[in-house]
Amino acid sequence: MGRSIALLQGDSTVGDLVGNAKRIESLANLAESKGAVLALSTELAICGYPPRDLLLQPEFVHLAQEQACQLVVGIPVLVGTPLSPDHDKQLPSNGVVRCGPTSASSDHGNRIVARKQLLPTYDVFDEARYFKADNRPGIARTIAGLDLGVTVCEDAWQAAGMTPSTYAADPIESLAEWGRQGVKLDATVNLSASPYHAEKLMARIHVCRTAASVLDHPFLLANQVGGNDDLLFDGNSLVAWPDGRVVIAPAWKEGVLMVDLDDPTACSWLPSTASDALDVGQDKLRFLQAGDDGQEHEGETLEDLTDAVVTGLSDYCRKSGITSIVLGLSGGIDSAVAACVAAAAVGPANVTGLAMPSRHSSQHSIDDAASTAASLGLVFETIPIDPMHASVEGSIGGMLEAGASVAGENLQARLRGLVVMAYANAQGSMAIATGNKSELAQGYCTLYGDMAGGYTPLGDLYKMQVYGLADVFNKRAAEAGLAMPVNDSTRTKPPSAELAPDQIDEDSLPPYPELDAILQAHIEGGLDGASIAAKGHEPAVVLDVLTRLERNEHKRWQMSPAPRVSSRAFGQGWRRPLASRHDWRRP
Amino acid sequence: MGRSIALLQGDSTVGDLVGNAKRIESLANLAESKGAVLALSTELAICGYPPRDLLLQPEFVHLAQEQACQLVVGIPVLVGTPLSPDHDKQLPSNGVVRCGPTSASSDHGNRIVARKQLLPTYDVFDEARYFKADNRPGIARTIAGLDLGVTVCEDAWQAAGMTPSTYAADPIESLAEWGRQGVKLDATVNLSASPYHAEKLMARIHVCRTAASVLDHPFLLANQVGGNDDLLFDGNSLVAWPDGRVVIAPAWKEGVLMVDLDDPTACSWLPSTASDALDVGQDKLRFLQAGDDGQEHEGETLEDLTDAVVTGLSDYCRKSGITSIVLGLSGGIDSAVAACVAAAAVGPANVTGLAMPSRHSSQHSIDDAASTAASLGLVFETIPIDPMHASVEGSIGGMLEAGASVAGENLQARLRGLVVMAYANAQGSMAIATGNKSELAQGYCTLYGDMAGGYTPLGDLYKMQVYGLADVFNKRAAEAGLAMPVNDSTRTKPPSAELAPDQIDEDSLPPYPELDAILQAHIEGGLDGASIAAKGHEPAVVLDVLTRLERNEHKRWQMSPAPRVSSRAFGQGWRRPLASRHDWRRP
Repeated sequence: MGRSIALLQGDSTVGDLVGNAKRIESLANLAESKGAVLALSTELAICGYPPRDLLLQPEFVHLAQEQACQLVVGIPVLVGTPLSPDHDKQLPSNGVVRCGPTSASSDHGNRIVARKQLLPTYDVFDEARYFKADNRPGIARTIAGLDLGVTVCEDAWQAAGMTPSTYAADPIESLAEWGRQGVKLDATVNLSASPYHAEKLMARIHVCRTAASVLDHPFLLANQVGGNDDLLFDGNSLVAWPDGRVVIAPAWKEGVLMVDLDDPTACSWLPSTASDALDVGQDKLRFLQAGDDGQEHEGETLEDLTDAVVTGLSDYCRKSGITSIVLGLSGGIDSAVAACVAAAAVGPANVTGLAMPSRHSSQHSIDDAASTAASLGLVFETIPIDPMHASVEGSIGGMLEAGASVAGENLQARLRGLVVMAYANAQGSMAIATGNKSELAQGYCTLYGDMAGGYTPLGDLYKMQVYGLADVFNKRAAEAGLAMPVNDSTRTKPPSAELAPDQIDEDSLPPYPELDAILQAHIEGGLDGASIAAKGHEPAVVLDVLTRLERNEHKRWQMSPAPRVSSRAFGQGWRRPLASRHDWRRP
Repeated sequence: MGRSIALLQGDSTVGDLVGNAKRIESLANLAESKGAVLALSTELAICGYPPRDLLLQPEFVHLAQEQACQLVVGIPVLVGTPLSPDHDKQLPSNGVVRCGPTSASSDHGNRIVARKQLLPTYDVFDEARYFKADNRPGIARTIAGLDLGVTVCEDAWQAAGMTPSTYAADPIESLAEWGRQGVKLDATVNLSASPYHAEKLMARIHVCRTAASVLDHPFLLANQVGGNDDLLFDGNSLVAWPDGRVVIAPAWKEGVLMVDLDDPTACSWLPSTASDALDVGQDKLRFLQAGDDGQEHEGETLEDLTDAVVTGLSDYCRKSGITSIVLGLSGGIDSAVAACVAAAAVGPANVTGLAMPSRHSSQHSIDDAASTAASLGLVFETIPIDPMHASVEGSIGGMLEAGASVAGENLQARLRGLVVMAYANAQGSMAIATGNKSELAQGYCTLYGDMAGGYTPLGDLYKMQVYGLADVFNKRAAEAGLAMPVNDSTRTKPPSAELAPDQIDEDSLPPYPELDAILQAHIEGGLDGASIAAKGHEPAVVLDVLTRLERNEHKRWQMSPAPRVSSRAFGQGWRRPLASRHDWRRP
């Protein structure tokens, strides 16, 4: 155990310097108690990722750095922290300080060991806005008897060719060049805040294997876990050896990956002992042999996606001080699955489902909503909206009759939004919106109606993925001997907004499997209409779908936070600007 | 007239390559007809600023560049356009091409003359996300017999020390060094998309004077005019001579500033002849002598702010295809002024004001709303909400009685939002929200209620500035011989939300002059609570205000686009992230 390094997979909260410091100390002490000689935190662990414009306050950067240097720990810890610039008109660095052991000497041995060299400024990243890039290799010498290369997140990605544009530098190659010049390192570490999306882990495995191979020594990556706003971090801290073997920590759990540099099979996982520690999903350590790219089968991917969505809402609530949730239960698949997510996130007793039938609601809607609520153990209330609907029509009926029929449909959705928000405001709960990515993309939802709420848990899941989550929740319930929360009626009936007589979604939209395929090809695949049609879709259908997608940008922009869980899509999808842009067309 | 350069102050629409090309051609032809030998557009004029993630589509960049090179013009024009990178994994450049004259030769003489060197990535700018920085000086030789330095917007700001952090390069100093080495230039031009905020023009004058002085030749800046989403561009294209004289084009108008390099007094302004050209405010050319910093008196600043707010809404509507507006008229100052802005933006006959009195509304509220509507000539309807309110209370009264009283107050605001949105959806109008910056900062507004709407024209104006705009609109009405739209009752009564009996804003908030001062010190001034209290405010009041500001971040984030018109505030205010960040506090 002489060469045991601890990767502190922590769940930092943006801005909470004191709380984050305590979490790092607690994980480091746990690691020390099990024999680690050295530990490393995740990227910017002291302030949480992404700190965004908190970094524009010099005082904040100064206090974060001070806090990172003053941790009370029994072993040396490499801590990710912003670093104050040397001069007023410079930006801070995204750096790493060495802290502790606290008792070692009078000056603590605190010092800066690395500054991030590659600053991602694409997709969900904005680092060139906040940080100055460095161009010196990060090296920590004779720390607990080890000589280490030190990198920060993106620093490792250029070598694997996994960045959308090419940087002028390659920190892994620079460290390798030092090695060729005779500077012998025992390992290279990487402090990461690498956000989740479906199948992201395989990319990260490839990055770490490439680095270990180029450097010819073990490469250790500690990754943030948990949610901050619309970003999710899966943890999955990992270590790769030059021969291709890999050990991966659990996802969606706070804890410590103990790495034995000399023996992959001696690695182990220590769950956090904190009472509020993130603890979703499976507690498994994964061991990959060379050649195993880490690809999971479809069922595992859906399980992971489910855990991701639960983590997003759960951590959002914990970090925002939200303890109860209210949502509308329509008897449809989206609200049923959203209820499952809410129940898993804050506990079923803290979730209220409101059935709000209208004159267009079928009896099965009410029954299915009640079935979901009963299976999960939610608080459940039924509030018919017809009396309110009739009253509003009495007051503004003339206005409605004279205009577009969608105004009357929206009215019902907005009355429901009003009831859900009244409940939320009266009880101090958070309302959640139940929409999915497919309908949000098509504008098949009502602004200030079913889009109302502080969080949209399914907002980055295509409709067919929502069905997939239903299966996962049902399976988990069955395994626990409980009733299935999403009953057969909910799973098999044709999706309907029930805002007009006999209305079903397919009256307005293509069948969801096709709609999802077109949207995914465009949003994640970046394909234009012609290329999508060439894959076998009717050109007129593709054009309709893409036209609705463009037209509804503004509505989508007003969506409450939805965690990013779909596959990677540089700058596409939900991060587009507001309404007054012209749909560009070929000259 | 041998050395007459035209600055094409155009109103580009983001993404509309064809429309923008036509506008540039039209302005260039106008300039040619009046004797200009050469013209320059604004920054990225061909695609509009800010193009944001359209730039991530290589096809878009390619077509923009092609379009910029193929303008049909009779004189050489320097056109701002994105430039395709040389290699796949590089970012585009923010550049300038020389185009035309169309008849001159077979290859048109088209070529790249400059690439932007300094990429602002702070405040409203995100250029490092989209562009590669260049490090070569831009020079256009023997173009219409002139040798010109060519810079793009930010390139000129480092020399004046007007950037928040220091760049490694200074393009103005580089051009000056070429001059010292014997490369004689006739002038340096700058293609800008420099957004507006109150008193921004003085900064721009200082930048141009500094450049002209350092370079020892005239410095000409063509600036975009009009609104795109939440950014406003004031135009105010200008030219500075080394002796400190300055000529400034009108604000809020599309047209051409004709610059005689040898005689400031011979400069002139040509309004655009396009039927849909932006045409707000005064048609004056300003001439400044050395030493005049361009500071306007308070009345002029308020006039300018009024024009800014009108331009924002007007251009948003034109570019989004919106021709009519609906808003709630409460009889209060905010909705009265918002109605004035709407009437100026799309014409009073295209604006509907809805009075929606409740059981808590006083008679003067209804009368004052009617007075504003009549003075402006709006469509006006009265829809009492009490029947609907009573019906909703009948359905969910138990829920409301059991909870926080704010739920009942929000209910009324949400019923009004529901009515306004029903009207908007039925008629194909855009609802606007009437809130101001002070109340939005304090959360003194209802999400999905009075915050509902596609645009928030007063959203970046403090409450006392709203009163200032009321005076401007009244003065303008009086000058035109019309009734004053904001009557004395509206201007002098204590502001009240009228959501509970005898409620006034001062029950919950400090008096607005004090509230505004505290907010401005924090948001624009960047001061913390202690520093604000030291300016003479009660510490407990300051703490309350700042606490409410932090707590209501999430609500504010859901605000519809509001043009940025308050004074400069790097990264503060309305661009903060979502809710789950921790309010940081000192360790």
